[in-house]
Parts: sequence; C-alpha cells; structure tokens
Amino acid sequence: MQLGLIGLGKMGGNMRERIRRAGHTVIGYDRDPDLTDVKSLAALVEQLDAPRVVWVMVPAGHPTQSVVDELGDLLSPGDTVVDGGNSRWTDDEKHAAELGIKGIGFVDAGVSGGVWGLQNGYALMVGGDKEHVERLQPIFESLKPEGPYGYVHAGRVGAGHFSKMVHNGIEYAMMQAYAEGWELLEKANSVDNVREVYRSWQQGTVIRSWLLDLAVNALDEDEHLEQLKGFAQDSGEGRWTVEAAIDHAVPLPAITSSLFARFASRQDDSPQMKMIAALRNQFGGHAVESVKE
Amino acid sequence: MQLGLIGLGKMGGNMRERIRRAGHTVIGYDRDPDLTDVKSLAALVEQLDAPRVVWVMVPAGHPTQSVVDELGDLLSPGDTVVDGGNSRWTDDEKHAAELGIKGIGFVDAGVSGGVWGLQNGYALMVGGDKEHVERLQPIFESLKPEGPYGYVHAGRVGAGHFSKMVHNGIEYAMMQAYAEGWELLEKANSVDNVREVYRSWQQGTVIRSWLLDLAVNALDEDEHLEQLKGFAQDSGEGRWTVEAAIDHAVPLPAITSSLFARFASRQDDSPQMKMIAALRNQFGGHAVESVKE
Amino acid sequence: MQLGLIGLGKMGGNMRERIRRAGHTVIGYDRDPDLTDVKSLAALVEQLDAPRVVWVMVPAGHPTQSVVDELGDLLSPGDTVVDGGNSRWTDDEKHAAELGIKGIGFVDAGVSGGVWGLQNGYALMVGGDKEHVERLQPIFESLKPEGPYGYVHAGRVGAGHFSKMVHNGIEYAMMQAYAEGWELLEKANSVDNVREVYRSWQQGTVIRSWLLDLAVNALDEDEHLEQLKGFAQDSGEGRWTVEAAIDHAVPLPAITSSLFARFASRQDDSPQMKMIAALRNQFGGHAVESVKE
Amino acid sequence: MQLGLIGLGKMGGNMRERIRRAGHTVIGYDRDPDLTDVKSLAALVEQLDAPRVVWVMVPAGHPTQSVVDELGDLLSPGDTVVDGGNSRWTDDEKHAAELGIKGIGFVDAGVSGGVWGLQNGYALMVGGDKEHVERLQPIFESLKPEGPYGYVHAGRVGAGHFSKMVHNGIEYAMMQAYAEGWELLEKANSVDNVREVYRSWQQGTVIRSWLLDLAVNALDEDEHLEQLKGFAQDSGEGRWTVEAAIDHAVPLPAITSSLFARFASRQDDSPQMKMIAALRNQFGGHAVESVKE
Repeated sequence: MQLGLIGLGKMGGNMRERIRRAGHTVIGYDRDPDLTDVKSLAALVEQLDAPRVVWVMVPAGHPTQSVVDELGDLLSPGDTVVDGGNSRWTDDEKHAAELGIKGIGFVDAGVSGGVWGLQNGYALMVGGDKEHVERLQPIFESLKPEGPYGYVHAGRVGAGHFSKMVHNGIEYAMMQAYAEGWELLEKANSVDNVREVYRSWQQGTVIRSWLLDLAVNALDEDEHLEQLKGFAQDSGEGRWTVEAAIDHAVPLPAITSSLFARFASRQDDSPQMKMIAALRNQFGGHAVESVKE
Repeated sequence: MQLGLIGLGKMGGNMRERIRRAGHTVIGYDRDPDLTDVKSLAALVEQLDAPRVVWVMVPAGHPTQSVVDELGDLLSPGDTVVDGGNSRWTDDEKHAAELGIKGIGFVDAGVSGGVWGLQNGYALMVGGDKEHVERLQPIFESLKPEGPYGYVHAGRVGAGHFSKMVHNGIEYAMMQAYAEGWELLEKANSVDNVREVYRSWQQGTVIRSWLLDLAVNALDEDEHLEQLKGFAQDSGEGRWTVEAAIDHAVPLPAITSSLFARFASRQDDSPQMKMIAALRNQFGGHAVESVKE
Repeated sequence: MQLGLIGLGKMGGNMRERIRRAGHTVIGYDRDPDLTDVKSLAALVEQLDAPRVVWVMVPAGHPTQSVVDELGDLLSPGDTVVDGGNSRWTDDEKHAAELGIKGIGFVDAGVSGGVWGLQNGYALMVGGDKEHVERLQPIFESLKPEGPYGYVHAGRVGAGHFSKMVHNGIEYAMMQAYAEGWELLEKANSVDNVREVYRSWQQGTVIRSWLLDLAVNALDEDEHLEQLKGFAQDSGEGRWTVEAAIDHAVPLPAITSSLFARFASRQDDSPQMKMIAALRNQFGGHAVESVKE
Repeated sequence: MQLGLIGLGKMGGNMRERIRRAGHTVIGYDRDPDLTDVKSLAALVEQLDAPRVVWVMVPAGHPTQSVVDELGDLLSPGDTVVDGGNSRWTDDEKHAAELGIKGIGFVDAGVSGGVWGLQNGYALMVGGDKEHVERLQPIFESLKPEGPYGYVHAGRVGAGHFSKMVHNGIEYAMMQAYAEGWELLEKANSVDNVREVYRSWQQGTVIRSWLLDLAVNALDEDEHLEQLKGFAQDSGEGRWTVEAAIDHAVPLPAITSSLFARFASRQDDSPQMKMIAALRNQFGGHAVESVKE
C-alpha cells in the first residue's frame, strides 16, 4: 500500500527503508532537503491517493502539534493520521478530537526498537478505533519483528502511547537494577571479574534479558566503563509514567527512584545535599566540605 | 567423576539427576530415607574414593553449618567441599577457614535455575581457589546450560554466593518493574487488554526478557491475577544485597524499594500508616478510618 | 478594614472569627444559609466599599474557578481577590491573568494551621504584586501567629501556594519519618515502652518538633494505635509537589516515598504484589498465598 | 555522687562540665594528657569508692570494646559501667554479658545534644536492669534538659542505643525532607526568597521544629549555601537503623532513601549511572557524556 511518512530522522529514515523492503510505497517528507522525497507537506498529500494514510514521526510536543494542525487543513474526510512519535497520551486525545471533527481518523503508535529496528523490526503498541487501525495493518506488519509478538492493538486512542510510556518506565527500572548490581559487584572484595559474572548470567538465570546482553556488550567495549561519565538524560516517558501513576494513585517506587537517580546524575553539586551539610554543620562539629577546600 | 551430594530436596534431587545424565557417579545423602542413597554422612564419605568431592545442597544457616562441621570431621586433607546452597557470602569465609585448617578445600557455588534447571541447566557462579574450582570442572560442565554462558569463576571464596546474591537483588527490582508497570496499565482507562500488551513486548522491545515471558505465562493462566493475593515472601538474598550495599556505601534505591514492597505486602495492616493516620487526626479534621467502622 | 470572605467551612469560619477579633469587619458568604452573612455573592460585593478586598476560601479546582469567574463579573477595577484555598500554583497564574484583564488584583495565600489556627494563628505564605499584597497587610497581621514569624511574601503570583505546597510535601516526609521510627521501635525486642521514648524526645533532641508533640498526644490517647487502621488519604499538595519536582528535575526520594506509602495504604490488596507473587509462582515452587486459601 | 568518665573529647568534656555544675564529683580519664584528670584507667578506678560507676564515652566499636575489656579486669562485683557512646545495640548485649559474668552491671545510654548539650542539656535514652539504671539516676538528672522530658528508661540492655539509633534514623529523613523542599523552592520561578519562606515556617505551621530553626540559621549565614559542597557523611546509626528494619521486615522507605542520598553525595562520579549511560549508548543514538569531552 501507499504511505506518507513525515520525519525522516534516524527513526523515520530506517522505518521508510523497512516498509519499502516489504514492498509498500513510501513518500517521505522532511524539512531537510537531503532526506525528503517531496518539497512540502502539501506536495506529499497531493501525491497520495485518497483515502490517504500519513505517518507522523517527528518529536513530541510542538513539532507534532504543528504537523497535526497542518494535516488537518490538507487532508480530506476518510484519511487517517498515525502519530508514531513519542507523544504524551493526553495529546493523542486532543489530536484525535481535532482531526475527528474533520472526518479524519487518528491512530497513535508507540514504537520501540531504536537503531536495531531496521534489521530486527520495531515493536508496535497501537491505540485507536478498530476501523482506523485495520487500514494500517499492512504497514504494521511490515514494521514489526518476524514472529508472533511485537504488535498489539492496546485499546482506544492514547492506549498505544500509554503502553509505550509504561514500557519505558519499566525499562528505567530494569536498567537501574542492572546498574545497581554492577556497582555493588565492582565494590565487592571477593569478586575479581564482574564482566564475566554479567556474561555468565546470559543463560540459565532468572535475569537474562536483552538489556543484560547490551550490558555485556558495553563491558566488552570498556570493562570498567572508565570512558563514560555517570550522567544520564531522561526522556519524557519516564516522567509521564510517574505522573500517570500519581493520577491513578499507584505507588511506583522502583521506577520513580530510577528517574530520580537520573535527575541526580546530572547535577554537578546537589543543592539538597548542601542543605544536609549545612544542618549537620549547625548541630555541630561535623566535618563539612566547604567549596573553598 | 565421582561426587557426594548432600541434600536431595527439589533442587538437589534434580541436580543429582542432571549430573548422572552426564555420566558421572553421584552418591546422594538425605535425611529422608526415601531419597537417600546411603544411610549416613559417614557412609557417604566412606563410599567415595579420595580425594573426595562433596557438594552440600542444604538450607543456609544452621543446616549448612552443621553439615560443614560434620564433614570437617569426616573428610581428609585433599578433599573438597562445595556449598551450593544459598549461604551468605560471609559464611563462606568462615567455612573455608574452618575446613582449610584441616587441609580440606572449599568452593562456594551460587546456583540459579529453579524447577527449570533439570531441563535447561543451572547457571553457576563459583568462588574459591583455582585448584579447588578446577577439580569440580566436570561437574560444573554437567550442570550448566548448553552454550557459552551460564558459568563463571567469579573470584575467591565467597564470590560465588556474592554474585548469586546480587543476581537475586537485580531479580527483585526487575520483578518490581514489571509489577509496577502492570498495575499502572490495569488502571489506565484507554488500555483494554493489558495481557496482550505484555505479550507483544516479547519481541522487538527493550524490555524483553525471560521474566517477561513468565509474566505472560502467568497472565495466560489468570488474566487479572484474581486468584492470587498481593503477598510476597522474600528470601535472605534480597536482604543481604541491601546489607552489602550499606557496607560498601552503595545507593541501591530500586532494589531496596522492591524489598520494602515485599515487606509491606505481608502486613495485614501497616503500623506506620496507623501513625500517619493518627497524626492527621491530631492536626485536625481529617477523615480517618477507625477499626470500629 | 473591611473584608469579604467566601467560604465559611471549618477553616473559613474560624478565620472570620479570628479576623473579627482583631477589629476588622468581615462580611462572609457561604452557600449554607446557616453560615452566611449575606444571601449571594452579588450581595456581598454590594455591601463592600470600593476598592474591595475579597478572600476566597473554597475547595481548589472547580469551586474556586467558578467563584473567581463570578467575581470577575461582579468586581470593579481596583478591587483585589485573595485565593486562600489549596489551589495548585498553576491555577493562580490563570486566575491572575483572568482578573488582571479587568483591572482586578490577585493574591494567592497558602494557609497553614488547621483546627489550631483560631487560637494560635495561621501561618501565611503569600504571592502577588507588592501593591496588592500591601493592601491585605492588616488582614494578614490579624491572621498570623503572634511573634516574628508565620508570614512571608514569598514572591510573585503563585509563590504563596507553591510555598504552601512544598510545606505540605515536607510535612509528608516528616510524618513518614516519625511513623517509620515508631513501627521499628514497636518491633524491637529490647524496647518496652515506645510511647515513653517518643515522649522523652520532646526535649534536648535533634528531632523535637510540633509533629512529635502531636505523635505523643496520639500515643497518649491510644498507646499502640489499636483503634486506627493504617489508612491515609493524601491531598493534592503532596502529588503536586512531586509533579513540580519532576518539572524541575529535582530528585525527591523521601517525599515521594511518603506519598507512595499513602497510596499503598489505601489498597485492600496490592495489584503489583499479585504480579510479584505470580512471577515467583512461575519460576517455581515458591509458596504463594492464593485467594482461595 | 562520684562518677568516673572515660573519654573527654567534645562530648565527654562538656558532659563532665555539666555534671560537675550539678554538684557531682567527676574523675575524668582521656589518653590526651591535656584533658585527663588521672594517668590511667587503673588510677581512675583506684580513685573511685566502691561501688563504682564508670561512664564510657569513646567511639563505638574497637575503642569501646577495649575499654570495656579493661574495665572488666579492673572493676569489682557491684560496680556499674555505662556506655554513653554510639555503640550498636548488638554490642550492648555482648558487653552486658561479658561484665555480668564478673558481677559488674551494664547500662547503655543513647545521648543526644551535640554542642548545644552543655547549655541545654542532653536527651538520654537508657537501657538496662532497673537496679543498675537507678544507681545512675542522679547523673542522668544532671545531664538531661530541665523540664519533664529528655529522659527515658526505654527497656532492657540495648534499648537505649536502639532508641537513639532510631532517633537518628528519623533525623536523617527529617533533614532530607527540609533539604528536598529547599531545593525545589530554589528552583521555582515564582518564589523570590526561599530563606524568608523557611523563616516564616517557624511559627504556626505543621513543620515547625528545631531542625527548621537550624535551617534558618544556616540560610542566614549563607543564603544559597554557596560556601558548602553537597557532600554529607553518615554515621553508623543511619546504617544500623536500616539493618534493624531489614531484620524485622519493616519497610523504611523515607529513612533509607535519605541514607542513600548521602551515599550518592560522596561519589565524585556514580558508577551505577555510568552503566545507565552505557546501556543508553548501546540501544542507540542517545547522547552520552564521555570522560574525554
């Protein structure tokens, strides 16, 4: 089938390639003239036969909003828009309503896979009305990994991004788990070779996983991670997961502490620990490190 | 080769079977007359040719201590004892010293695999002197999974149990991660089918793992886990992981919060939350649930 | 001076009393005919001499929004509205803008004191433009406790509620601290009389505080808190504190874990711990409590 | 009455002074010849009339152990030893048993007060048999603050140090609460003057406390704590509190996260966050800060 694809960055570009390999026609648009197949969004829409399907793969927030707004003006009743970016699930409801008034369908798709997706396929979590989701099925089939898994129609509009968001929250805590264990093993006097311990865990253990395989890769490249700083960004999804948990009064201690560990990792000096030092100083006699030392 | 194996419960019995299938001779001892091959520890030792190798597979703490004490009296210089149970790594150092005085070698082996081990093999994390570990190599080979992983000589005495302990700590936080995510998805209004979301994650995602496969199995048996109570035991390893982290001043927020969630799950009513309720009551006018309601 | 006061519930009613005792004129409005001084908001506005000052003391969210909307229609340029309820700081900016267009000033006031406020005074944290805040000074003086503290002009619009929100976040973690310590002492074999330990801490210790005094009061009424259930509500402020921390990438582990403890306290059975139990069940042989037991 | 006092450092020296001011006779011993009243422990014991009371005020662990051992040899049946240092409660049981065999009584006393104790008095939490505790009553009276509180006989041997340990655990979480709140307020755009917000809280609020007063003192000295590094030591008590909680299966999220925040504050670079960075790097395309940048 025919697909319009907006946003040809690292993710979008690879997805175009994977969909084309499956025999579909993809017309891509990107602001970067070296990447784009057409000169404008209007040209993209013009080249597609109605009813059109347009996949939006641009950053969450303003970029996605402005593409959705523009598509609302350019598309026709019966067309369908898929947001495959990292939008917050609450934006999906807005976008679906905005387009729905004009008779345009909306589907949200959480996409996992990163740089490995072109080769291995992308896991897809999809939200939307059945009729809109079904139109996309050939594209979803081309993107997903071979095998029985890697695709789900999770529920109504927003369910795709919500599921992907929770996936990322779980990912935060799993990464934190392997990271905490690694630091503790590195500190143990008796353990000589932490890298080999991690490697051994790849079979027969309860904690074998793809992330563990990645950890072993990383340790093979740099056994004690001496080339890296203990500095980790966080994306919107981790934060939104905690916010969603607060909305639903769900305790989320492991995921939240993983998010906070990332916040702390980015502080050169911790303001709150200055206050702890100040209080210890006040009640007396505790050695405190001052900036001037 | 020839191996004495003490403790023929669920783990020990299956391990005897797997070692025998690999062509080794196992003489097993258990207090249960239906399980044992010999009548006593003394008889076990007598039946083995020197230098003997005896694998201890009994519960950590007093049971392991008393078997080690008895073996210290029964064995001869040049023999080797392996503790394959869940001992605390600090016990290993004591046992190695106690046996070492008598010229008996000591190896500690953390064993992972549970009921799946007989078929899939057991992951082994081993600590001890090279000469003692090497004597055991054929047995380790027979127990471990096929393939390049699943076995490591992690370091000196204690390193095996320390590594297994950290493995279990990581396991706690990974289980907690999947559990938190599941509860949040179950609460989401937009997501219709949480089980299918979990199933879809088994391919192409960052969080695919053996534990995820188990989660899907569990949801297939009982989609909303209505047949279970939210009640989880913890074994020594989770607690020891946190204690080891405290010894080494390593922050362990995700693993520790996972341990605490299990503690809380076993309380019918939380004493500390009674104090919160009492304080709210004191500063006024907050609705508090009293026992009498 | 003259003040209009909207909302005469437990807080508003006591505040009216305290302001009147200081010699000011308060015209109160409440939907409850037994409490109100006037029949309608319009009547309230009519009875006040311009430039008017109207204090809104109704629940956050829709109730406050609808009073602000109505006041926007009823008041005149030069009048001032104070929101003394528990509004989210982000609402303050909206309300200030909405009223500002009409030339009406807006001040937000976080109020602490509960049922003790009538007698001891209310701590006030205020946000807004200097000119608007200054008009309110006599009222603030009448409400605040005697002594040098208990009042602050914290910053621009929103700063009052933001400060009060953080106050409540800190309160959550302090309450949790006393609660955790109490449970641990109650479990200790050596400690006979936890209540007397708490009582003794009221002098000479680092942790003496008003909340500690309340804890002792509570233990005097019910030494082991046997009349209470471990069940604690949370108000918006605790949640908003965590959300604000996420917005600013500030790690907030103690406050957040206190909030999560309250969430968990309200669950009859923990869904996430069902998943932990299910996973333990899957990898074998762990005793799991089933609902049918 | 007469008291032998061993250890005349900052705490011990001030305590000697406060006890003397109350009219008691204190013979002090310290290894530092500038501080000591006598030349040796033997000389101290010789100068006291039987039955003797000797207060040990030296660091926990080996120093306390060696003084207790020596006193076991020097003292006579009927004498009493008080450990007023920061010993772990489990050491108390050992010391009581060791001295008890020789007919010497043992009392453990947790002492709070720091540099403010000389003037304001020391809060005392005491464990031991009634007969031993009663002999010390005049000394306890002289040390404790004026007023009804500040002293408790908490239970049997160990109860004093256990109570003091929990006091310090609570202190950790309270300090963390004020610290988290401070950092969040400092980040808020609307709040101009965080110091004045903290100052205002000293009256009429739920969170007024002695620690809050200290926080205000600290902010008066250095409004944004620019002269301090966010670096905080921890003493044994915080760690032991978490270990005791693990022993009793008590969840302690706020106190434990406060301890972990201190651990993290002392790391120049976080090993575990290096692993997070490494994993993000592996699954692709995330910007990672490398050491070489």
